[in-house]
Order: sequence, then structure tokens, then C-alpha cells
Amino acid sequence: MLLKNCRQGLNLLLMILAIIFPITTVNAFEPFQPLPSSPPIPDTNPQTQARIDLGKRLFFDRQLSVNGSLSCNSCHDLSRAGSDIRPRSPGATGKTSERSTPTLWNVAYETVFFWDGRANTLEQAIAEHLLDRNIMAMPTTTTVVETIKTNPIYEQKFNDNFEQGISYDAISAALASFIRSLVTPDSAWDRFLQGDADAISAQAKRGFDTFVETGCASCHFWVNLAGPVPGLAFQQGEGFYELFPNYPGTDYERRYQLSADLGRFYVTRDDTDRRMWRVPVLRNIALTAPYFHNGSVKTLDEAIKVMAKTQLGKDLRGADSADIAAFLATLTSEMPVITLPQLHE
Amino acid sequence: MLLKNCRQGLNLLLMILAIIFPITTVNAFEPFQPLPSSPPIPDTNPQTQARIDLGKRLFFDRQLSVNGSLSCNSCHDLSRAGSDIRPRSPGATGKTSERSTPTLWNVAYETVFFWDGRANTLEQAIAEHLLDRNIMAMPTTTTVVETIKTNPIYEQKFNDNFEQGISYDAISAALASFIRSLVTPDSAWDRFLQGDADAISAQAKRGFDTFVETGCASCHFWVNLAGPVPGLAFQQGEGFYELFPNYPGTDYERRYQLSADLGRFYVTRDDTDRRMWRVPVLRNIALTAPYFHNGSVKTLDEAIKVMAKTQLGKDLRGADSADIAAFLATLTSEMPVITLPQLHE
Repeated sequence: MLLKNCRQGLNLLLMILAIIFPITTVNAFEPFQPLPSSPPIPDTNPQTQARIDLGKRLFFDRQLSVNGSLSCNSCHDLSRAGSDIRPRSPGATGKTSERSTPTLWNVAYETVFFWDGRANTLEQAIAEHLLDRNIMAMPTTTTVVETIKTNPIYEQKFNDNFEQGISYDAISAALASFIRSLVTPDSAWDRFLQGDADAISAQAKRGFDTFVETGCASCHFWVNLAGPVPGLAFQQGEGFYELFPNYPGTDYERRYQLSADLGRFYVTRDDTDRRMWRVPVLRNIALTAPYFHNGSVKTLDEAIKVMAKTQLGKDLRGADSADIAAFLATLTSEMPVITLPQLHE
Repeated sequence: MLLKNCRQGLNLLLMILAIIFPITTVNAFEPFQPLPSSPPIPDTNPQTQARIDLGKRLFFDRQLSVNGSLSCNSCHDLSRAGSDIRPRSPGATGKTSERSTPTLWNVAYETVFFWDGRANTLEQAIAEHLLDRNIMAMPTTTTVVETIKTNPIYEQKFNDNFEQGISYDAISAALASFIRSLVTPDSAWDRFLQGDADAISAQAKRGFDTFVETGCASCHFWVNLAGPVPGLAFQQGEGFYELFPNYPGTDYERRYQLSADLGRFYVTRDDTDRRMWRVPVLRNIALTAPYFHNGSVKTLDEAIKVMAKTQLGKDLRGADSADIAAFLATLTSEMPVITLPQLHE
């Protein structure tokens, strides 16, 4: 892994790219890019409309939780920008998830999953969700398969779309296909990057400059403003992490208990991973309050100030954080229309 | 109330109608009718598309539960024919509802609400749901109003559509408007009643005859196969109830604990109301397992046998219950397409 975290920053990435690619490509490298119209699709899980539709059924199906109380959409609410308005989400049995539910929109462009990056693929992340005691709490993979098999429509659709028919892997694969279809390329920021200079306001432009000058863009760059995507220096499974808080001892850290959770350390047990976190996606960030891994911060303006202080050691002026908020608001996309599947057809 | 329950039966209703209406109308009375294209709308809550849309937002909004965990759709799942696949539904705080969640489709044609008919209007039923400790568990009406007020989109939409702006009554009224839009007139049974003799199979026709001959139609008649609708002998608030079980002491009663809950008695404390229940809607019944007030019976075929035995003292032959099931399947409608609202707009 050439670039483990963004303390090494955007400049280092550019250096690496200069080594990897011919100079002409590097000259063309732009750290901010519109969202590509389709995300990377793994060879192991080819995308078809039928698989997307099947995954959508599963996404809204409460049978995937131990007591039939939750569907994926219960926390990753597609009426709420794919996220949850709660700091943390109660799972099927009432136990609360350990961390805040992130949005699913545009995760198809990520290299690792979960706040601590412990899943290398979306398929793995889904497979873990279903069995997680704090989330869907299904007892075993066999129970999941048997539950889904009770519905003859699923039997037919899995047989039509997966060589092995219904299996735990096929269930995760279908869900991953649906989630990969959740992309929001239609933001003002994308239109601006595509050449429409009037797509964003003067304040948002000022906010973008402040965002870069303050140092936010060291981590929050590229198509998701969350660092490299698969194929850009990073491969699937290589995470882009940052220490948080980076400047310890602030009032914010105490107030929002930002250091209580050691993040990636729990995955690797490597001391250098204490309080390391995957750089989160900023697309649609204005819609996905509350903020941070513990959902402790309620407003975007406060989250911007917390980040400037704890990550970059800077006290932002009110006008500056307002400008940055105006820029971040340009990352909000029109949400695609989602129709409810009919699970009993 | 001329006709309190269906032990007095359909024949009595016809007699009553003969008294109330001129003879020509009575001759034209048909106990089975296609679903009218629009349900009765109370003068106190006029229906507009804007109010329906506002109600739909609220219906999918988890902010209406105490901890943000449930929306109306969490139990009255419009992906699941407006019902729940669980026998009973866990509420926002994990307490389980006392009775099985009924479908919301076509309740607009009902005269009373809840299994025990304790709400005279849909608006009252909704108002009670939000505060029910076992359901949405909001602490007070004021909390509900304050929560909804935190969202400026709601503020605007309530101001546009309700004279009083956001109020507890207006929230219930908007939700009622949306729920009244949930009608499924497009079933094979409706097409058959409208003159398409081929809309239902020979088995379904035989099943209908058996349904009537067995005595099911004494209670299960008219547009919802649930007895009178507002304006047909009954006014809004007058419930059509039946004793259940009617023939006590059966194996079914023990196996499914059908007598444990005293139903309407808990509302009125009148001994004649012990184990009296509102006659439930049969539209889309093939999609809304499990069955009965306690959700104890898993399959429609078993539910039919239980009803014949406990209500009418009859042991149905397998072929007869299969025929009745085929008839009941004709009450399944194409479900209207529902798009998810975007709550953050």
C-alpha cells in the first residue's frame, strides 16, 4: 500500500501518480472530478438489471432480520439520503449499533467499507451486516438462506440470475448490485466540474477555495471527496485512513467524545491504527446529519468547525465555515426516484 | 345502531334496507360490490393531492416515533400489502404490539378502526398510534408537533395546507388523507363483478358459492367483504362486530389461543362485548398472512378452516377450503406503485 493515510496527503498522491503514469496523464490529473456515470463493478459480481432488481427486493425485505423488524432500508433509509437521522441505529433486537449509519449513496466508489474499513468489498460488508448481533442479527448464514427460500418468488429469481441459485453469497451479491446502483451524479458540483461555471454560487466557490486552503482537500478529494477510488493508485480492499482527532486535547474532542472509539485499531490491533478512520464520503453530506463515527455532532456547520480544529488545528471564522458549508451543499444531488418493490408478487 | 353484529346476518341487513329504502333500491341491492373508485371522505378533512403528499411524507418519516426507529411504513409495510409478516409488531421501544398489524389498504371504507373498533375515525386511530407506548411511543402531542416543526419543509407544507399550520390534528389529518388514498380497486373480483365473467376461474366461482353457502358471507360481504361501509345502513363510528370464536371449545381455539384476548370488552367493559371483534377486511387477504387478531395462523388455508369451524361449526373438506382460497385470491389487487418520498427536500 503506497499511501496509507492522508497525512501523507494529496501532494504525495500526485507524486505517486507521477511515478506510475506517464507525465502527460499526470498533468491531466485533477483532484476533483465529477462522479463517473457508472462505478467500478467487480468481475466476480457482474451487474445486470435483473440482479439489481432482486437486490432491491432484498434491500426492502424485513425477512433479512432475525425477527422481521428491520430491512436494510430501516437504517440506510433511501427517503433520508440513504442514512439515518439517529446518531446510532437500534438493531433488530434493540441493541444499538456501535457507530453511526453512513449513507449508501455512492459507496460503490469506495475501496473499503465500514468506518474502520474492515470489509474489503461491498459483498463482505453486507454478509457481515446480516449476521451482526447489533444489526440484522440473523443467527447463521443457513438461516438467512432458509428464510429467503420460503418465498417462492426468490427461489425463481435466484435460479434465473445466479448459477448456484439461492446461497448466502448470492444474497450478498444481489444486495451489492442494488447498492452499486445507488449513485447520485446529478449535483451542482458535478455540473460545475463539467464546465457550467454558474452551477454553483460565488459563496460556494469561495468555500471551495477555503476548503482547499484550510487543508480539508488533503483527505477529501477525488470523485467522492473521500480519497482514492478503486483503480486510482488504490485497489479494492486498500483503505484510505486518517487519524481522528489529529490534534488531540481540544474542547470538541471532550464534548463529542471523539477519542472514545479507537477505530481501526480494533480491526488490526496495530498501535499505529489507534483512532484511524476511513475518510468518509462527502457527497450529499448536507443531508446526512448527524455527523462523525459516533453521530455526535448535529449540524454541518459545527462538523466543519470540529474538523478544522481537530484535524488541522485551525479555528475557522464563522464566515469561512459558512462558505465551506455552501460549497458542501453543492455536493447534494437530486435523489433518483425509488419505487417500493412488491415483495409478495 | 340497528345491526350490531353479523350473527344477525346479511338477511337482517336486507330486511333493514327494505325498511329504510324504497323497494326498487332494495331489489337493486347486491351484497357484493366492486370497490368504488373513491372512498368516503369526511367533511372535516377534505382530500387534496397536496395533503395526500404531505401525509405520505409523514407516513415514511421515522421522526414520528420516539427514538426515530419506526415510521408508519415499518409495520404497515407498503412493500408487503400494507401489513406485516410478523404475528405482532415490535414498537419503537421494543415492546410488542398487542395485536397483529392489519393492512391499511382500503381501510378508508371502514366504519371503525383497530381490531376492537375503538376509534371512530381514521384520524382518531392515527392520533392514538403516535402516542401508544407499544407503537410509536411519542411522549405527548406537543412533542410530536415540536419534532415535526424542526423540519422547515413541514412548516411550509402545513402552512400551505392547513389553516392552523402544524398541529397534532393536522398531522393526523394529513396521514389520514394519505391512507385514504391507499385503495386497490384492481382485483379480478372487481372485474368479475363489473361483468367480466372470465376474470375469475371456475374454481374461484365454486369457491365463492361455497363461501356463501358455508355462511362466511353473513359477515364478509359488501365492498371490503367486511360488512357495511359508511353510508350503507352504518354511519362512521358504528362498528360491525362478531363473536370470535363463536363455537367455543374447538381444538383450533386451544391451539391458536383464540380466546385469550377479550377484544372489544376491554373498550366497553360490557359483558356482551367479550371476544367481540370488528369483522376484518378480506381484500388482499392472500397477501396479509399471518392471520387473526393475534397473528397466530400462518396460512390462508388454515385460516379458512379455523373460521369455518370456530364461527360456523363446520368441518370444511380440503377441496372446499381450497376453493374458498381460490375465491379469496381473486380479492388480490395489483398494488399501486408507491415512490419513496424524499424527506430532506
